[in-house]
Order: sequence, then C-alpha cells, then structure tokens
Amino acid sequence: MTPEVLTADNTAVLLVDHQIGLFTGVRDLGTDELAHNVAALAASATRLGLPVIATTTAADSMWGPLVPELVAALPHGHPVIDRGTVNAWDDERVRRAVEATGRRNLVIAGVSLEVCAALPALAAVRNGLNAYVAVDASGTFSRTKRETGLLRLAQAGVVVADYSALMVEILADNAAPHAGEVYGALDMPFAKLVGGLSAAIRSR
Amino acid sequence: MTPEVLTADNTAVLLVDHQIGLFTGVRDLGTDELAHNVAALAASATRLGLPVIATTTAADSMWGPLVPELVAALPHGHPVIDRGTVNAWDDERVRRAVEATGRRNLVIAGVSLEVCAALPALAAVRNGLNAYVAVDASGTFSRTKRETGLLRLAQAGVVVADYSALMVEILADNAAPHAGEVYGALDMPFAKLVGGLSAAIRSR
Amino acid sequence: MTPEVLTADNTAVLLVDHQIGLFTGVRDLGTDELAHNVAALAASATRLGLPVIATTTAADSMWGPLVPELVAALPHGHPVIDRGTVNAWDDERVRRAVEATGRRNLVIAGVSLEVCAALPALAAVRNGLNAYVAVDASGTFSRTKRETGLLRLAQAGVVVADYSALMVEILADNAAPHAGEVYGALDMPFAKLVGGLSAAIRSR
Amino acid sequence: MTPEVLTADNTAVLLVDHQIGLFTGVRDLGTDELAHNVAALAASATRLGLPVIATTTAADSMWGPLVPELVAALPHGHPVIDRGTVNAWDDERVRRAVEATGRRNLVIAGVSLEVCAALPALAAVRNGLNAYVAVDASGTFSRTKRETGLLRLAQAGVVVADYSALMVEILADNAAPHAGEVYGALDMPFAKLVGGLSAAIRSR
Amino acid sequence: MTPEVLTADNTAVLLVDHQIGLFTGVRDLGTDELAHNVAALAASATRLGLPVIATTTAADSMWGPLVPELVAALPHGHPVIDRGTVNAWDDERVRRAVEATGRRNLVIAGVSLEVCAALPALAAVRNGLNAYVAVDASGTFSRTKRETGLLRLAQAGVVVADYSALMVEILADNAAPHAGEVYGALDMPFAKLVGGLSAAIRSR
Amino acid sequence: MTPEVLTADNTAVLLVDHQIGLFTGVRDLGTDELAHNVAALAASATRLGLPVIATTTAADSMWGPLVPELVAALPHGHPVIDRGTVNAWDDERVRRAVEATGRRNLVIAGVSLEVCAALPALAAVRNGLNAYVAVDASGTFSRTKRETGLLRLAQAGVVVADYSALMVEILADNAAPHAGEVYGALDMPFAKLVGGLSAAIRSR
Amino acid sequence: MTPEVLTADNTAVLLVDHQIGLFTGVRDLGTDELAHNVAALAASATRLGLPVIATTTAADSMWGPLVPELVAALPHGHPVIDRGTVNAWDDERVRRAVEATGRRNLVIAGVSLEVCAALPALAAVRNGLNAYVAVDASGTFSRTKRETGLLRLAQAGVVVADYSALMVEILADNAAPHAGEVYGALDMPFAKLVGGLSAAIRSR
Amino acid sequence: MTPEVLTADNTAVLLVDHQIGLFTGVRDLGTDELAHNVAALAASATRLGLPVIATTTAADSMWGPLVPELVAALPHGHPVIDRGTVNAWDDERVRRAVEATGRRNLVIAGVSLEVCAALPALAAVRNGLNAYVAVDASGTFSRTKRETGLLRLAQAGVVVADYSALMVEILADNAAPHAGEVYGALDMPFAKLVGGLSAAIRSR
Repeated sequence: MTPEVLTADNTAVLLVDHQIGLFTGVRDLGTDELAHNVAALAASATRLGLPVIATTTAADSMWGPLVPELVAALPHGHPVIDRGTVNAWDDERVRRAVEATGRRNLVIAGVSLEVCAALPALAAVRNGLNAYVAVDASGTFSRTKRETGLLRLAQAGVVVADYSALMVEILADNAAPHAGEVYGALDMPFAKLVGGLSAAIRSR
Repeated sequence: MTPEVLTADNTAVLLVDHQIGLFTGVRDLGTDELAHNVAALAASATRLGLPVIATTTAADSMWGPLVPELVAALPHGHPVIDRGTVNAWDDERVRRAVEATGRRNLVIAGVSLEVCAALPALAAVRNGLNAYVAVDASGTFSRTKRETGLLRLAQAGVVVADYSALMVEILADNAAPHAGEVYGALDMPFAKLVGGLSAAIRSR
Repeated sequence: MTPEVLTADNTAVLLVDHQIGLFTGVRDLGTDELAHNVAALAASATRLGLPVIATTTAADSMWGPLVPELVAALPHGHPVIDRGTVNAWDDERVRRAVEATGRRNLVIAGVSLEVCAALPALAAVRNGLNAYVAVDASGTFSRTKRETGLLRLAQAGVVVADYSALMVEILADNAAPHAGEVYGALDMPFAKLVGGLSAAIRSR
Repeated sequence: MTPEVLTADNTAVLLVDHQIGLFTGVRDLGTDELAHNVAALAASATRLGLPVIATTTAADSMWGPLVPELVAALPHGHPVIDRGTVNAWDDERVRRAVEATGRRNLVIAGVSLEVCAALPALAAVRNGLNAYVAVDASGTFSRTKRETGLLRLAQAGVVVADYSALMVEILADNAAPHAGEVYGALDMPFAKLVGGLSAAIRSR
Repeated sequence: MTPEVLTADNTAVLLVDHQIGLFTGVRDLGTDELAHNVAALAASATRLGLPVIATTTAADSMWGPLVPELVAALPHGHPVIDRGTVNAWDDERVRRAVEATGRRNLVIAGVSLEVCAALPALAAVRNGLNAYVAVDASGTFSRTKRETGLLRLAQAGVVVADYSALMVEILADNAAPHAGEVYGALDMPFAKLVGGLSAAIRSR
Repeated sequence: MTPEVLTADNTAVLLVDHQIGLFTGVRDLGTDELAHNVAALAASATRLGLPVIATTTAADSMWGPLVPELVAALPHGHPVIDRGTVNAWDDERVRRAVEATGRRNLVIAGVSLEVCAALPALAAVRNGLNAYVAVDASGTFSRTKRETGLLRLAQAGVVVADYSALMVEILADNAAPHAGEVYGALDMPFAKLVGGLSAAIRSR
Repeated sequence: MTPEVLTADNTAVLLVDHQIGLFTGVRDLGTDELAHNVAALAASATRLGLPVIATTTAADSMWGPLVPELVAALPHGHPVIDRGTVNAWDDERVRRAVEATGRRNLVIAGVSLEVCAALPALAAVRNGLNAYVAVDASGTFSRTKRETGLLRLAQAGVVVADYSALMVEILADNAAPHAGEVYGALDMPFAKLVGGLSAAIRSR
Repeated sequence: MTPEVLTADNTAVLLVDHQIGLFTGVRDLGTDELAHNVAALAASATRLGLPVIATTTAADSMWGPLVPELVAALPHGHPVIDRGTVNAWDDERVRRAVEATGRRNLVIAGVSLEVCAALPALAAVRNGLNAYVAVDASGTFSRTKRETGLLRLAQAGVVVADYSALMVEILADNAAPHAGEVYGALDMPFAKLVGGLSAAIRSR
C-alpha cells in the first residue's frame, strides 16, 4: 500500500477531543508532553496552510474544554464542534467540514487513540480518503488500548505516524522560505538544543 | 480491510475459558483487572442487547468454574457450554450457538489469548464472519504468547481491540437513553474519577 | 535497625488524602488497584482491631472526597479530618488522634507517597514513633517521585512495605479465629484463585 | 490470509541451529528457558507424530553441537544435517528432507530468529508452503533483531506463534488418548502447578 | 537520620550546569521535561524566598549557556558563576555564595546527577550542611549513572527527592497567601488538569 | 556493616513455603526458574555440607506440598515442618532446628519474599544472627512487594543476595575437590554453555 | 509478499543523514552502538561488493558532518551528497545515484528512522524498487517515532530488518572465500566472544 | 558516611575477571559497551597515574583471557594475576599488590558484579580500606544479581558508582593540563558528539 505523498494542498487535520477531562486518563505519555505535541501539530499545520478542524465531546456536561495549550496554538476564535456521537465522523458537521476542505488525506489526532482518533480514521478510509493518525498527538488509557489501537489502524490501511514526521513530509523542502517557522512550530526537543548550541558556538 | 461498523444488531460475543485454573497462569495483566474487564464486557454487552455465549474447558476435571466476577455479570443461570475440544469452534454446540445469533460480527475474549480466543477467531474468519478479539478481556501466559498472538490475529484479518473500544463503537451515540447504563457497566477507571470529581464540584 | 514486631496492640493506621482529585494524577499503579488496596488495608486493619485515622486536604475547594471504595471499607460515619497543612502531622487534630491511640507503631498510606505519606512518616520518626509506609496503598505522580520517595523513607528509618505484608505480620497466627476474616478483607488476587480452585476440586 | 488448520498429517517441524555457541548470544529469553522450549517442541511434535528435521551450522569448526536438552528430547541417533549455507533451505539435504515429508505446513524454530528461522520460512513461502515460526523456541541477539524479525515474518505471510499454541492446535481434542502425553511433553509451567495442586487436594 | 524540617528560612538552592550542551546527553528523562522541572524549581524557590545560586562549566569553550527555560525562570540578570572545577564546591565563589546565605539546608540540582549534583552534595555533607538533591531537576547520561548516583547519595546521608516535594514541604501551609503562586510556579501536570476541570465545572 | 565471611562451618539454610499453591502467585520471576533456583540452592548447600531446614504453611488444608523440583533436590525423606504461624521463626520447632545447627549465619529463601523470607530474617537479626535472603530462590506477588521487601531487608541489616553468589562465597576455593560438584549443583545457565562449548572444542 | 532473495548483484545501500547533530537526539539505542552498526553496515556492504550511497542534510549550516566511525568505514574520499530536501529521494543526485546502480533492492538506513530512512523507502517502493530498512543502523528520537515508523514501513511493503541479517542473507554461503572478512566487518558482539574463546581453547 | 575525596594520590584500581568466557554470560549491559567501559576505566586511570591491578580466574582451564579491548588499554605486558580463589582478595598476590600501592581507596570492577567485584570490595572494607565499585565496568548474569549486588554493596559501606564519575572526581580540575587526555580516554558517547559538533561549527 503506497498512498500518495502528503502535500500542503492535499491534506487536512482533524483534532478530536483533546479535552481536560479526557487528558486525566492518559497513561501512554505525559500529559504535558501530549499537550505540547497536539499544540505543535496545530501550530505547524497552520503555518503549512493546512485546514484544521477541531471537535469535542460533551464539553459542557462532562469532559470540559480543550486543553489551553491547544487553544493557544489555534487561531483566536477557531471554531470547535461539540458533539454527542462517539465517532466524530458520525456528526454531520464534522463530516461536512472535512469534505469542505476538498483534501483527500486526513491527519487525525484524538484522545483516546483507539476510539476518538481511530473510529473517524476507519470511517474516512471507508469513505475513500487516506487516513493518517498522529499517535504522539493522541494518547490513551491503557497499554492494551495503545497496542491494539496501533495494530487495528495499520491493519485497516490507516497510516500511523508521529506528528512531526507528517508535517516535515509536507514541508518537503528544508530550504523553503517558511521552513524555519515550521520547525519553530514543531518545537522538537533535541533540535532546540542543537540550534541553541550552534548559536552559542557561533557567537563566541 | 475495512469491515462494516459494529452495531447492536450485527454483533455477538463469545467468551472462552475464563476459568479459575487458567487465570492462575495469566501474566500479561493482573488477574483482578482481567476479571474486572471480562465482567465489564459481559455486562455492557448485555445492556447493549448483544447475545453472549460462554464456554469452558474441562471445568470439572481440571480447570474449574468461571471466575465469580464473570458469573455475577452474566444473567442468573446463563448457560455455559463445557467442552473437550481445544478450539471452541470445533464444538458443534458452540458453533450452532454462534450461528443461531445470525450476527456476522463476533467479539471474542478468551484465556489464553493465542489459543482460546485466537483459534475460534481464525475459524470464524474462515467461515465468513468478521472476528474481533477483546485483548484486555483475554489474558495469556508469556510475553511471546501475547506478542505473537496479536500479530497472528492481525495478519489473519481478525481485529484486535480492547473491550471498551468495541462496546462504545456499538453504543455510537453518547446521548442514547441507555448510554449512562452502558458506561456504568464499562466501569472505566479514569471515567469514574472524573465523574466523581464532577459530582463533588457540582454539589458544593 | 530492628524495630519491634507489629501487633494488634501496638499499631495504628493513618490514611492521608486518598481523594478523587489526587487519584487522577497517580501513575505508578492503576487507580482501580490503588482503590482496592487502600480499602483492603482499612478493612483488614479494622478486623484486626487497629485504630484507623483518615484525613483529607481541601476536600471542598479542590481535591474532592475520599474515593468511594475507601468510604465503603471504613465504618459508617467514620470521621475524616479535612485540613490545610501540607504535612498531616502539622495539623493538631491529626497529631492528637494519633497520640490518643497510644500506639508506638504507625502504618501510613497516602496520595502522594513522597509528600502525603512521607512527610507525616518523617515527623512520626522525629517524634519517637516507628513509622511504616504501605506503598501499594499509596500512589504517586512520576517515576522519580516513587523512586526517591522510597529511598528517602528507608534512609530516614521509616519501613517501606506493602499493605498485606504489614497486616499478616500483625495477624501472626494463621490459625487464629479471625484469620479467615482478615484474609478475606486483604483480598489478595492469587489467594482468591487458589481458594476458588480448591473449593471447586473439593466439591467434585 | 487464513491458511488451513494444522493437523498431525499436514505439518512437519524444522529446527535450525540450536547450538551451544549460538545460545551464548541469545538475549530475548533465558537460555535455560529456550532450551526447555525447543526440547518441549521436539518432544510434543514427536508424540503427535510429526516429522522433525534438525540442522546445524559449522558444528565442528565454530558453533558446537545442539544443546543437550534438545538432544535428549529427540529420538536417540536422530540425524542432524550440518551445513555451510546461511539459509538452511539452500542446503539440498534440508530441502529434500522437508519435501520428503509431503507436508504443506512447516513449523520452524531457529537461533537466531531473524536469520536461521526467518530465511528458511521466507523460502518455504516462496516455494508454496505455509510457514510458521515458533518464536519462543527460537531466540535472538538484540531487541531490534526480535522486533524486526517478527514484523518481517508477519509481512511475508509467515505465521508467528509460540511452540505450545501450535502443538495444541494440532492436538485439537483434549479428550484424545495421547492428550495427557502431549501436555506432559509441552511441560507448561502454570499447568504443572495447577495439576500438582489438584492432585494434592484430591489426595487429602 | 531525621534532619530538620525544611523551611523558607533555613534552605538555599544550588543549580549546577543546566547547560545546553550537557542536556544533549540526558537520557533518564525528556529534555523538555527536565527544562520544565528545573525552571519550576527556580521559580517556586524564588516565590518562597529561597536564595538561588547558579553555576556553569566551561560555558564559553564547551558546554554553552544555561537552557533558556531556566534563564527565563531566574530573575533578570541573575548572576551565573562559570567555573573550571569538576566539583562546584571546589570553586571558592560557589562555596562563599552558599555560605553567605547562612542556610544549613542545601537543595541541589545538576546535570549530571552523579557528578554535578552529587559531588557538591557530598562536599556539603562533609562540611556539616544537610544536602538534598532534586533528582527530576537533574538528569544524567546512562541507567547505571542514575541508579548508582541515587544509591551513593542516599548512602552518604544526602536526601534524594523530587523538586516539588521539597518545595511543598517548605510551603507547609496550603492556606498561606502565596500558596497559589507557589503551586502555579510548580506547574505540576495533573494539578493543572484538575484545576482546569474544576474551573470549567464551576463556570457551567 | 561488614558481617563475617560465610563458610561451610558457620552457615545454615532455611527454606520457607516453596509450595505449589504459593508458586501460582509468583510474578517477579518465572515459576520454572524459581523452582530451578531453590532446588539448586538446596542441592549446592547440601554438597557444601550446610544444614538445610524446610518448612511449609498449611500444606494439607490450603497451599499444597513443596514443588517437586525442591523435593528431588533434598535428601530422600528430608523432614519438612508444617506450621500455622505466619512467621516461621515463631514456630518453636523451626527456631529450635535453626539453633540446633549452632550456625550464626542463616541463608533464607521463601515464597513470598517479603513475608515468608523477610519476617524470619528480621527475627533472626533481632536474635543476634546474621541473616541473608536468597532473592532469586524466593519469589513474590507484585512489584511493590519485591521493591519494598528488598529495601526493608537491607534497612534492617539483612543481606540480600542471589543463591549462587552466597554458595560460591562459601565454596571460596575453585580448586577445592568438591568445586566441580558444587558448580554442577548450582547449574548456572551461561556456565553450562561455556562448559559445553569448551568440551566440544577440546574434543575436535 | 515474498520479494526476491537479496544478492550481491541485485542490492545497493543508501545511508541518509548519519550526522553528528542528529545523533545527539537519538534515544532508541546508544549512540556508540548506532555508530558501530552503521559503520559495520558500510564495511560489510563494501566487502560484499554492494554500491553504497551516502547523503547528508545541511551539513554545513546545521547538522554537521557524518559521524567519524562511518567516515572511517567508507572508502577514503567516498562522495557524500549534501542536500536540502527532507526526502533524500527528492534530490535528483541521490535518485540518479540509486538508479545508476541498476539494483532493484535498496537497503536504507537513516537518522531518523521514520523520516530520513522511511520517506526514501516509501518513495523507492512507489518507484518499483524493493526497499529494506536496517533499523539498528538507523535511530530515532522518541518511542512513538520508532513504534509507528516500523508499522508504517511494514504496512507499505518495506521490509524492516537489522543490518547483519541483511548482509548475511547476501553472503549466503558461510564457506565463501570472503565469509571471514564479512563477519569481521559485521563485528557482532557475541560472535567475537565465541571466536575469542574458541581460539583460546584451541591454543591451550 | 562521608569518605574522603578521591585523588590521584590516594586511589588504586582493581580489575577482576574481565574474561571472554565470563562476558558471554553478561546480561545487564551489552558486551561491547562493557568492554568499552572497562577499557576506558583502565585507560583513564593510567592517564591519571593510578596503579591498576588486573586478575583472572582459571584463564587457561575455563574462562579464557581478558577481553582484547582491555588488553589494548593496559600498558603492554601489564601483569595479570591468574588465581584459583573465588574472592580475589583471598589470593595473597592480589592482596599484596593492593597493599603495595599504599592507597586507601580502591576502585574495583569485576565480572560478575556481585561476586568478582563485590567480594573483594567487602573484604577491602573489612580491612579498613574505602571501596568503590564501578558498576558499568562490571557486569552480571541476571536481574536479581544486579539488584541485590548493588544493595549489598551499599549496605556494607561500599560506594557504587560508574567508571567516569569516579575518574572525573579524581581529575577534579577541568583546566588541568592532562584534562583533555583524560576525557579522551573516558570516551563518553555524548561528549564526543558535542565535541565533534563544536569543532564542525567552529571550522565553518
């Protein structure tokens, strides 16, 4: 299976249920790290010109708002679709928002991985899209959920990846004018260190 | 491979050999947690209206009865088919019970994962059903058994998942009248905490 | 360092901050397992005749009530001291309650291990008591907190242990009249399985 | 992919390079456990009537003889083909021995997993056989070798499994006359304990 | 060993070599998390009124400046002593700065744990101070370095802890006027989530 | 703390509760490996001339007999003291058997580590003996039990070790006439491989 | 999927971005071990007569030169293509160099695994080549990157393997004249030990 | 316990049994890494002017010579004492060699950690020396051996550490003339990378 190369023109991003209440259950990565990653995904996607769709579940009655790091990374007043369906794809507003982008490749992140990210990804594939899940911008509640979530996605033809691999694939050219801005938004830990060390050495 | 969406009308549950003697060998999750999970699977499936079939191996001569948590979660007097075949699918009573449900999707859990859950799952696929294994309501005896069990299932087109992901996929609508009851039966640890905290805050 | 043997006459139990809100942060064991363990500690201590003192932090303004499993294990209406001090020992009501028991050995559990259990334990040692921490009835928020919490306690002369080891040390005699009741309250996973298997075999 | 069910009539076993010198490099399971497992595979396969083919690499010049546990499990004087090819399938004597069995399903174990077991498995698949690898009767030298070995095999259509899952699939009927003998040869740790406990309880 | 209770009047903080170049080698926690932790230590210590002393090694010739997160957490223009000695205690400026605080308890963090934090801690103990090491605001380069570093410190009477346990011990009173500010500076991941969830529920 | 060197004249061995029923709960090492280790301890101790005392708990009513590997390693008809006390030291027959050896150093192994091995070890220290626990010939039921068991023992002055380190310390001289016999009884996995490889190379 | 057997005539090697600056971020294996592995891959490939193509990213402005171990393993003055594209396949010089080899099988290693190795591998498959990734001669920056990188590659039909498995598959014949030289270049840790031990025993 | 500071004048090094045959059993770190570490210890100690004593066990009859990396790091023709005692301290030649150095602090490394390094360390302490064990220049055969070896050493007053922490403590002054040479001999992986990156940046 060799789906087409991701580009800034053929890809959209769907963020599902990165809500405070659901974050309390995340056990496969630190919640600070998860908030960092999903914010970095949103920020770099925006700089690359990708449409970003955000949705929540029962924000008012149960799970609370998006984590503040993601709110800060999204454009001010960016719309968030609050829904009642388990599968975000089953909400017509979400589905229409995805279709309105006209993009055939959908990068999805969600909390939890195996439900909030995986069910829309499976639905997207059933509807003829190519689906990608950014696993380190998702997060889940147990070892089995992560392990089986990854296998179920791969088996169904969904590509599992990390957030920065997908965004640099779209960047494609490290010499592009916005490359520095995109890497800044990606905010990868070791790259910050090497960049800082280089700057220090050069300034000596 | 994108099998159809699971619904309360097209899915049945098969529970294989959740017996006390076999639980003593489980090493990939705690036996209390496993008993909780399979009981939660049975309870939520029942609330969703799914038929549940239970079978044991050599209950009287070797492996003992079902664990009490599962017995308590099943309707009183629920039948349990005790058999002599390694593969539950090879027992005609089990096979007929599955066929009698008329469901094309079969969610299986078993102890051990790679024999008691996997062999019926492979047989179901050979017989044209879609098979799912609820891995955290199963359990096995060594790292290699778990690791290769998951890969063998995925390779054969069986979907590996966790018990609650499958049941909430079937629930589909968080606003459904029985949603609260189903989530209560699923009894997910972090959800209990958030629910309890919310209730406490609201009561202040 | 060889402190005296624990007995039902020389030991009391102090439970610190087993509150819903703090449980959401626990990462070193499952929250269901932690709730089971602290409830089993309270239940077995009660059956052994040990005084049990319970305290919370900011229950109304921030961290919420005790987890329901612990509430159910304590006698109905058991008093809970809600306080504002970080170290429970710094609250005069807690300190007096401990002193009122007249016991020289104090078994402590708390969430988190390295603050809520450890600081009172260190204070108890400074005040001439022998302190024990039941680590699997405590729980904490990071690997470093657990790892350094254990070392700091051991270094200070506090005994680190698990809840059931301390209670069976107090039981001392497996032939005592209340032994069955105590083991029932301890509710150890593998012992349940062996007991169930034995009963099944005997009933054949 | 749903290959046919394994039976005592359609399956053969190929054991590749379980030699003392290669065992010194095994890091993914204990060498005592590995020796136990491959001996149990050979012993149970023999009791099930499966042909067993054994081969070594450079036994005299470099890697030494088979481990004694496997020698003891094979019939006295069982032939061992010592060869110079990396892939056992490339040795004509091995290939002919496999073909002479007339079996279409080949269970392979080897040290190391990703070379000695995997290369013949891939060759068998290329030659129209169904290949299975018994991973816990194999063993390898690094984490990456195990992890990628499993993925490469699964990707190529080779079934990865553990030794006892494959043998009990062939046994099929726990009530068969030789079932006790086969389980004895499989020698699974927890089953021994449950059997011993049952016997003790019955003898009271 | 039961050293005195830490207070805002008897404690100082020493931060050793949190430099970009040394961060590239850290393997026992993520470098983003480490930068967060040491910055949170500096910020909360400042809010608690503790003197903070910072030192670097070969900042210009080899290891580069402090990580920017720590720089941002320290007061603007906070002095940093760049030195040539392996053990910061061997630099007279560092030693005098510590002595000038007049505090008997010294909280130390350093990269690496077993050299930059541990050697000054051992020296402080030899000089009659009580030494504490904040392990999650330190960081090191291998598993053995962490494991033996912790044991060596504990053996020598240095208290090993995490940064927030030490700061809340000093805070002592959750009802203190600056408690909210200190907890804000500590910035503990799960506490942020519970706080955010509570605020959301209250605002409904 | 530097206790005297162990010798064949000053050391005895106490084996506590290596019973089938308790083995079913062991989670910190494989039960086959544990049975191997305690049998190797008994066999090598016997060859070194150390007195070996064995005791069980509720063998007839609950936990069953010693595992067969240990029975086979002990001299035929070796006495086993079945008792009702939690702490084997509290049984007068056990205590007298230890005292009758006249040895000041006691090597203890037990299932579980933190109760069956640890409580007699603590009692032995209180009674003026030097106590050692052979941790890999013990075994326990959870991570916390192992982790805190080790720390509690070390804190109390009990030496924690592995079975073969203790026995080769007693052997002392690799050139002793019985050295080969002792190493044979110790049966260390890698040593078998090197010995086998050496023999093979020499026989070429 | 059963691609053709690798041979010295049909295989080429592509090494992507094994640069000092990128090595500082590697977390899934030690950087010394990674340098050893990629150098051993280059050295053994050269001895087997495989063409080796090397490329770097922003060597002068950001990430620095190849690690010295790899430089030493490549022939003196071996060309290195420094490029600006994220995907090495997108650089026409790299693509032409691969095509100029005329080989249909491409073994790729890169830092990082999921970008520098994976993106060219996916491109190679899209262009009709068979692609292999040598995972232990690659290296990456987080657990999720490794885990999803492996799954994405396997899903796309790229074979994941370790460096020595691929090279010994190409060697094919352990009796070949250059076999000793190739194994010397592979420099596998345990093989060195067995070889050294054998030599020692033979020289006695 | 605060032993004196290590210096080039008060410290000697004892290397016990770093032999090929024993390396085959090492499981707590890679054998290449262990060989690197003990060679780096020997090389840096030599450059610091520390006396180095090396000993082997049954080199001719059983365990073979020192690993070649250590031989290369020692001065040509450096004496190696081959002995028959389990504890190197029990060999009069070893003991005299240590005493002849007149140093009160002894840094020991050995394979295995808990016997070959630990028994001489315990003996040294009994004889009034300060003993240090360089754990990453040692190595052992099982998890329990490492875990209990470390605890036994710490309990007995032996300092456990890593090789480079001990050597840089002795170096003391990063501005010393031989500092570059010592760091070169220590050959720490991340420091090589930072050094290489700095050189590359400076040369631009």
